[in-house]
Amino acid sequence: MLKLSRLVPSVSTSRDSLLRHSPAFSTSTNKYAAKGYSSNRIFAPYSVYKGKAAFSLSPILPTFTKLDSGAVVVDRRGSMMMVFMHAIGERKYDWENKQRFALSATEIGSLISMGPQDSCEFFHDPSMLSSNAGQVRKSLSIKPHANSNGYFISLNVVNNLLNTKDFLSVPVTTAEFAVMKTACSFALPHIMGWDHMTHQSGGTVGLKSKVEQPALDLEWDK
Amino acid sequence: MLKLSRLVPSVSTSRDSLLRHSPAFSTSTNKYAAKGYSSNRIFAPYSVYKGKAAFSLSPILPTFTKLDSGAVVVDRRGSMMMVFMHAIGERKYDWENKQRFALSATEIGSLISMGPQDSCEFFHDPSMLSSNAGQVRKSLSIKPHANSNGYFISLNVVNNLLNTKDFLSVPVTTAEFAVMKTACSFALPHIMGWDHMTHQSGGTVGLKSKVEQPALDLEWDK
Amino acid sequence: MLKLSRLVPSVSTSRDSLLRHSPAFSTSTNKYAAKGYSSNRIFAPYSVYKGKAAFSLSPILPTFTKLDSGAVVVDRRGSMMMVFMHAIGERKYDWENKQRFALSATEIGSLISMGPQDSCEFFHDPSMLSSNAGQVRKSLSIKPHANSNGYFISLNVVNNLLNTKDFLSVPVTTAEFAVMKTACSFALPHIMGWDHMTHQSGGTVGLKSKVEQPALDLEWDK
Amino acid sequence: MLKLSRLVPSVSTSRDSLLRHSPAFSTSTNKYAAKGYSSNRIFAPYSVYKGKAAFSLSPILPTFTKLDSGAVVVDRRGSMMMVFMHAIGERKYDWENKQRFALSATEIGSLISMGPQDSCEFFHDPSMLSSNAGQVRKSLSIKPHANSNGYFISLNVVNNLLNTKDFLSVPVTTAEFAVMKTACSFALPHIMGWDHMTHQSGGTVGLKSKVEQPALDLEWDK
Repeated sequence: MLKLSRLVPSVSTSRDSLLRHSPAFSTSTNKYAAKGYSSNRIFAPYSVYKGKAAFSLSPILPTFTKLDSGAVVVDRRGSMMMVFMHAIGERKYDWENKQRFALSATEIGSLISMGPQDSCEFFHDPSMLSSNAGQVRKSLSIKPHANSNGYFISLNVVNNLLNTKDFLSVPVTTAEFAVMKTACSFALPHIMGWDHMTHQSGGTVGLKSKVEQPALDLEWDK
Repeated sequence: MLKLSRLVPSVSTSRDSLLRHSPAFSTSTNKYAAKGYSSNRIFAPYSVYKGKAAFSLSPILPTFTKLDSGAVVVDRRGSMMMVFMHAIGERKYDWENKQRFALSATEIGSLISMGPQDSCEFFHDPSMLSSNAGQVRKSLSIKPHANSNGYFISLNVVNNLLNTKDFLSVPVTTAEFAVMKTACSFALPHIMGWDHMTHQSGGTVGLKSKVEQPALDLEWDK
Repeated sequence: MLKLSRLVPSVSTSRDSLLRHSPAFSTSTNKYAAKGYSSNRIFAPYSVYKGKAAFSLSPILPTFTKLDSGAVVVDRRGSMMMVFMHAIGERKYDWENKQRFALSATEIGSLISMGPQDSCEFFHDPSMLSSNAGQVRKSLSIKPHANSNGYFISLNVVNNLLNTKDFLSVPVTTAEFAVMKTACSFALPHIMGWDHMTHQSGGTVGLKSKVEQPALDLEWDK
Repeated sequence: MLKLSRLVPSVSTSRDSLLRHSPAFSTSTNKYAAKGYSSNRIFAPYSVYKGKAAFSLSPILPTFTKLDSGAVVVDRRGSMMMVFMHAIGERKYDWENKQRFALSATEIGSLISMGPQDSCEFFHDPSMLSSNAGQVRKSLSIKPHANSNGYFISLNVVNNLLNTKDFLSVPVTTAEFAVMKTACSFALPHIMGWDHMTHQSGGTVGLKSKVEQPALDLEWDK
């Protein structure tokens, strides 16, 4: 049951429940391993599988680097990675052709502050600042259903290099969006690296925070 | 006082306060031990005891498995377990005949996004995909009080194998539901296994997250 | 500065800022030590000091006990302890005569779910079920200001044993109440002991949760 | 890419995305190191860079001291440090002349409880109670945009000692403010030192909390 629960880490309806026992996924472990996920990577995405497409949501943590000064700074920012797949049959999804969209901290801020009537759209250019700038354009939109009972989450990718266009759209229920909001709110401080700046992440640290904090004095000294 | 506080881990009213000292529970430790809870299981449910029935709420964590690739994936998803008991006397509850209902991540999303007027209902078939599919049907409903001051949380179980029907309903106050929402919001990322994907759960990890994260590059490389 | 910041762990206004440097508190460390706080107790209450009275808010964690079965259960439930003091002069408070009120998980649920117009009141009998039942009555009320810009938090204690009555009332701003709500929401799962049931509290635990979880199966097996 | 991601740990728009690759920052690592950040300080601020000015937001943890009684108390309270810089060219900011403002727990409470129409203002006197009291006055204001789509966050500093005045104002979007609210809500309990009073911060602690808790008894004993 490993491979199945991996494919459907979150199940909300009988239909999905059926899904998690579907032989359709029987070979996915191999596929999965074939993707060459790095050793010790923990994989627990929140996935929403619908009729025409599916997406999964996973936090990507920032990485840190130590400067000569000894200060430790964010090297690569974290994000919330969304991976979209087309359906290629009943409860079959095209794992070979995924589309990715990495939400920044502020884009996550947009998502978690959305009301039932709100919509938002984000634009990314993966080739930004390279000679290919503008050749690949991605946009992610979140639009409320007419009855404001949930949203459509849609990814549009125009790739002028490969001369391809791709569009994936997944309807999410209010409940599924509530999970996304709660999970993103939980993950946001970690994506920002703030858990490293709290006692929480320094569970083994003594009572003195491991960080010297001249800040208050700095304000007073101004 | 152990057995009593275990039986009523949360107390909100004088009535409940009385309850927690009631001799009615004096033998429950034995019953409890007799249930054969596995060694080292930590048991701290949030329980709501009312006149005709009671329920308790406890998070069930996911389990993980390591693939040949070294990737660690969710083996069994977590859930929020609700256990219902009938009252069998004044402040006595039938521990021998419990009914269980395990809320999935998305069902928890429904619960935590409910407004004072909202209601929801979930359907489970424990025998799903077995030869007994459809023989046991469980439904959990959460319906607001007429004055929208709290909810009725009701479990309906129809078991055609044992030819039994069972119905348990527990009224919860706005305050009790607020505890459920806050506790479920806290537990949801853990049920999803996301705490394993954050620095928080890797308190002893170095500054580099233990997870390689090619994700951003993957988006850019697309 | 130790004693001062301890007395006023949170400061929001110039007036309070002045307070934290007031010689009025110069002897409080002695008083404090004299209270005989147990060794290694970490003391970081959120305090609100106003003209006629003050209160502080601190989480009290549950304690656990191991049963013969190996199961670990809550021994004494956690709470949110409120300690009230009368003002006995300009920025002087009567540390010798405190009144305490321990909010249960569900009472915390009431507090964190209050809207700007809402009010609530809790009743405790410290002598409950003893021969002195009813002799001491405590009630805590939270009532919105007329302009719904903050609340009055008032403790009323009637002690028929000592034949005393005591009433303390502290006005809190919307900002101070927001801190209380956020801090109580953070503390609630810990007060309930749920952090022990999550990977978070088992930072050093392996990938398998240390808790066996037959729960899902139990639902299916029903 | 280190220096860039450090300078712009959060990116929300193409414009900002461009920013993070700007050679304008190429020398900032040196500047940064030159600031003499203490060894092992982890630096992961949330920064908002706009046309005329920028600010960054970072939690400052409290420090603790052990009393003779063995009790551990807050020595210096935590805060949320805001650092403002003027723009001195296209995507260039004046790191040599920063203005700081440290939000207290209650000021954070104001920020996280703000509705789209609300505004607030805080006043600090860094020289308070010194002979220079009143010579330096700082005020931070948060005012909603006319269309209530975001806020202006402005710092005003009047320094009569240096006979200088400084004013910095940064417009923030609803999404950026949502990140600030979520991050501040996450950080608040840590700024208050409450993570030290929960099992969470004592991940390696046994089942008995390391804190003796006579509190409930104290209420009952009253």
